Amino acid sequence: MGRVTARRSVLRIGQSGSVRRPDTLAVEEPLEIRTAGRALTVTMRTPGNDIDLVHGFLLGEGIISSARDVSVIRYCDGVDDEGANTYNVLDVALAPGVPEPANADRNFLSTSACGVCGKASLDAVRVRAPYDLADSPLTVATAVLSSLPATMRARQRVFDSTGGLHAAGLFTADGALLALREDVGRHNAVDKVLGWALTENRVPLSESILAVSGRASFELVQKAVVAGVPMLAAVSAPSSLAVDLAAESGLSLVGFLRGETMNVYTGEQRIKLA
Amino acid sequence: MGRVTARRSVLRIGQSGSVRRPDTLAVEEPLEIRTAGRALTVTMRTPGNDIDLVHGFLLGEGIISSARDVSVIRYCDGVDDEGANTYNVLDVALAPGVPEPANADRNFLSTSACGVCGKASLDAVRVRAPYDLADSPLTVATAVLSSLPATMRARQRVFDSTGGLHAAGLFTADGALLALREDVGRHNAVDKVLGWALTENRVPLSESILAVSGRASFELVQKAVVAGVPMLAAVSAPSSLAVDLAAESGLSLVGFLRGETMNVYTGEQRIKLA
Repeated sequence: MGRVTARRSVLRIGQSGSVRRPDTLAVEEPLEIRTAGRALTVTMRTPGNDIDLVHGFLLGEGIISSARDVSVIRYCDGVDDEGANTYNVLDVALAPGVPEPANADRNFLSTSACGVCGKASLDAVRVRAPYDLADSPLTVATAVLSSLPATMRARQRVFDSTGGLHAAGLFTADGALLALREDVGRHNAVDKVLGWALTENRVPLSESILAVSGRASFELVQKAVVAGVPMLAAVSAPSSLAVDLAAESGLSLVGFLRGETMNVYTGEQRIKLA
Repeated sequence: MGRVTARRSVLRIGQSGSVRRPDTLAVEEPLEIRTAGRALTVTMRTPGNDIDLVHGFLLGEGIISSARDVSVIRYCDGVDDEGANTYNVLDVALAPGVPEPANADRNFLSTSACGVCGKASLDAVRVRAPYDLADSPLTVATAVLSSLPATMRARQRVFDSTGGLHAAGLFTADGALLALREDVGRHNAVDKVLGWALTENRVPLSESILAVSGRASFELVQKAVVAGVPMLAAVSAPSSLAVDLAAESGLSLVGFLRGETMNVYTGEQRIKLA
């Protein structure tokens, strides 16, 4: 999948005049996710790690809970003007016994790659969490938390060339990076990294930290909770509902993680103060 | 609507130790949008300017094209544990002759506040643009463009206290601010400001600039195009598909608008070089 970045001509205007030059952009393309041939959702994503993305999306929506719940995922349809596969449509065959998404059955779309956006009603916003985060033994030193943004940043190869991608990383309690994914959509970056963990049979991620390069919203907290992640660390601000859901779910939520300073909104018992 | 910010207790950790203190957060709550009593979508938004948001959302989805297409919008249902209205459900009565959203009719959700996310299929991603941007007489001096981020920033009152909100602003060719809206979701901020313009009978916005505090995605370009806005200026990076749709639609797309420097990706004929 060599479509993570694209080149476009740009007129760069600065103090000393303007110059035309090529510019590297983050690629954004639609991905349609189907189950049993029926469209479930379309998400605008950066191509690459699409299989991880689909696993993470289905996990976050409560449709699957382990890699065994998926029989086959294959690229289908989606042919461009020249007849080449666009690799923008993925069809999922769920394993025998795994119920088709209820709403897809009755031709009503209640799922979305934007988490709650696109949900059909308020009742559909919440996804049931299969794991009790209170069971997690995780504790993390503040020095480890402080190290996470720089570790992520050093591995954000696409951001370096485009300045336009969100990142999500999974870390051990010692700050070792397990996996990092980038995407134009922050929910996609999280789906990709949690989907990777699912395919590696690492869910529930009861001893891992999920770190994100931006803000922490309700949907990102929900995705972490559903994957059994006990700690979410965000470089920027959380929303009110993110904090409320974290408190209710027993998730440790860290925000404004910058240098040696950070805000611990919930679950401070997991933070080892220096 | 005094629910734009909320206070939560936070453990602030810094080099000199930790202190517990109250923190101000941007409020995030779900808004369910209904037409004729049927759920159309749920978006996670910052409460306030909800009527603008609904107008902008319906405009961007191609469901309405003027304020006259809406008869009534009212808060309904949505009662909290104490029986008080949550103001999180809005029901829209479309004017006589305006078709109900086709997909809602057959109980299939193809719309979403995240723009394309939650769409049912790739075909549903594109919204037909009712205006030809080539008709726009707009030209803008680079000095005006350079002034937009600071003007927006000075008016972002909620960002100042929370650090967690996106902003969208509508400007004249001279850089005068027509309206600014903030939201936890950047698509919502754009919907709010374009919805405001619709209710003010300013659509098509053929002489206006839409400025956004973050990145420029496909969905934001599409929202601008559908509202007849000929220029979109973003503080951060555009995606590949944003540039491609802008080029195809005749929209002028400016990115990385910082100080006196900026990148003009498309439609440079509207930029007056100093």
